[in-house]
Order: sequence, then C-alpha cells, then structure tokens
Amino acid sequence: MSENTVFVGAKPVMNYVLACITIFHSGAKEISVKARGRAISRAIDVVEVVRRRFLPDVKVKSVGIGTDQRASQEEGSALTNVSSIEIILQR
Amino acid sequence: MSENTVFVGAKPVMNYVLACITIFHSGAKEISVKARGRAISRAIDVVEVVRRRFLPDVKVKSVGIGTDQRASQEEGSALTNVSSIEIILQR
Repeated sequence: MSENTVFVGAKPVMNYVLACITIFHSGAKEISVKARGRAISRAIDVVEVVRRRFLPDVKVKSVGIGTDQRASQEEGSALTNVSSIEIILQR
Repeated sequence: MSENTVFVGAKPVMNYVLACITIFHSGAKEISVKARGRAISRAIDVVEVVRRRFLPDVKVKSVGIGTDQRASQEEGSALTNVSSIEIILQR
C-alpha cells in the first residue's frame, strides 16, 4: 500500500500534515509515515500535529526504528548507514 | 528507575552509546533512551549503534512518541510544544 505512505523530508511540517489528512479523508484506514536521518524528528512533529490538532481519532499503531544503507554523496566512497523510522497511523 | 534512563542531547552519539553499554554491563535488564526535538534522530542512532555494533542481544521493546511542553527561550512568551521519543531497550 505504497499510496498510503508519506515520506517526510526537508519541507515544512504542514506540507506532510496536509498529505496525511488528504489520505485519511480519501478513506484510508492506515498511513505509514517514514523518514530517515535528520528528518526523523520532523516525522514525529507531523504525527503529533495530525493527532492533536486535526484528527484526534487517529492513533499510533506502531513505531519501528532501523538502519538504512545510503550511497554517500562523494563518488567512490562506501555506503553509509542512516537511521530510519516508520510510524503507522490508524484511524 | 531513573538511573536506567539515558537522555540524548547534543553530544556525540558515542557518548550516549557508552552510557548505555555501561548501564547494561552493570546488570540492568532495561534502559529507557529519551530525547526531544532535533536530538530524536540522534537517539535512534544511539540505539542502532548499541544493537548492531556492541550488544546484538539487546532488543527494542517499545518505541513511544509524544509532545512535551517547553518554556520558550524568549522571556514572557508562551510554552512551545516539542516532540519527544522514548525507546525501551531490553537485554
């Protein structure tokens, strides 16, 4: 169900909040909010704003953390590890 | 069991990794790793380094997210919200 996944990156929090609300309003029961590296704290901001300000019936079903491999910016250098988070929201 | 809590802030990841390892080596079965705001992604880095590089028998028991109130830096201004995370590690 990749259409119900919101990848949180460097844009303002409200962009991702709106994405979540739009998906829930289209009838979805579950959304996966994912982020890596420094965007992780923004992903939690997104989830907290969705739940506390807009959709109080939304619950955090699960939170998973892990490590992804990322190709480094510099050419020829090895893969680097980056922490990741996946938060499943359920309505 | 506040002596088994590691608060992750702005220091290097390895400082907190060492704190976790020291607590586990002292015989603790559970550690709570907490962080707020932009330190959240560092807290996940800490947990991943502990598990993957040093103590592979350590498991993530639970991950909780929430919102804390924080007094703003500017005097006289209202409380601001800050996202928080608590990761319970179990050996």
